[in-house]
Amino acid sequence: MDVYPDSLKKLISQFSTLPGIGKKTAERLSIYMLNANKDKITNFTLALDGMKDSIKVCEICFCFIEDDNCHICNDVHRDSSLICVVKDPTDIFLIEKSGFKGKYHVLGGLISPLDGVTPESLNIDTLLERLKSTKEIIMAIDPSSEGDITILYLSEIIKKHSIKMSRLARGIPVGTSLEYIDEVTLTHSINDRVEM
Amino acid sequence: MDVYPDSLKKLISQFSTLPGIGKKTAERLSIYMLNANKDKITNFTLALDGMKDSIKVCEICFCFIEDDNCHICNDVHRDSSLICVVKDPTDIFLIEKSGFKGKYHVLGGLISPLDGVTPESLNIDTLLERLKSTKEIIMAIDPSSEGDITILYLSEIIKKHSIKMSRLARGIPVGTSLEYIDEVTLTHSINDRVEM
Repeated sequence: MDVYPDSLKKLISQFSTLPGIGKKTAERLSIYMLNANKDKITNFTLALDGMKDSIKVCEICFCFIEDDNCHICNDVHRDSSLICVVKDPTDIFLIEKSGFKGKYHVLGGLISPLDGVTPESLNIDTLLERLKSTKEIIMAIDPSSEGDITILYLSEIIKKHSIKMSRLARGIPVGTSLEYIDEVTLTHSINDRVEM
Repeated sequence: MDVYPDSLKKLISQFSTLPGIGKKTAERLSIYMLNANKDKITNFTLALDGMKDSIKVCEICFCFIEDDNCHICNDVHRDSSLICVVKDPTDIFLIEKSGFKGKYHVLGGLISPLDGVTPESLNIDTLLERLKSTKEIIMAIDPSSEGDITILYLSEIIKKHSIKMSRLARGIPVGTSLEYIDEVTLTHSINDRVEM
């Protein structure tokens, strides 16, 4: 690192903080930027700053929005009675790719007493306000101990409202062979078996 | 891509232009940036802009410099009579790691008539001006057809000045087994064999 100019070192350390980018890749990307023309760098910083400035959060579903308009909440072709509960706004991008046509609610985290994340610090009050017009809630939350606690907590509240609750099926990913599946996943896929 | 806000799409397409970054990785990095706090993005753009603004080119060796001071050209502990000729300024960073203690000269490209790169468009005149105080020139240039043409062109000029010329040894990388080496490299390593 000592051979690099200071400003290059700074960029390398910035790239190194990105997930999945090691020191060697950070060096390669930074040196690419150094060789790139100044327009290229300007476009890159404009894209970063543009995103930082224009992305806001929807007051209903807490998804990322631009131009104060949530295209999901305001979409009349979507089923308002079906709410998919997710941890982060970015989870919505993944679920949208599956063709889901309901609405969303972003919790903003998972209940984790050890990390000081209590139900009060999550977007749960706002979810309860939406229950009146809701028929089904899908919990699209990672299978982890925090995820399980959060689902348990929400289900205790929601079952009082006689609303259908479901969670994502756990099982074998498409394209995978049985021999590569861990036994916990296999147990879930047997328990969640589907009648034919 | 259609599910993403426009400003996120722009950032994804910027990340996608980086070498070795595919669409999936670009999405992952951009979403990481979206979740990151604004200070993180500011630090990143400052590092990029800082590099763009502060990096200049040395008028002697054409290496990247900061603060109008080339720490290689002005280093009195380096051997001024030994010049290592490289294609790009970033090649210097790689050679510096080897502990080389001579000076450098950046050509700024390789002769390639098909791409319209002639000797006149490279930093060759300025190299010739430096020959008076030079005893040896090392050609640290990639083994390619353009590299070979450039080395041939330079050697024709330099041999008139009775200056020692050398090129990097071609051979077997450290840590590699003979069975993984292509035959051209093996031929070079036999021709360049070193007496023991």
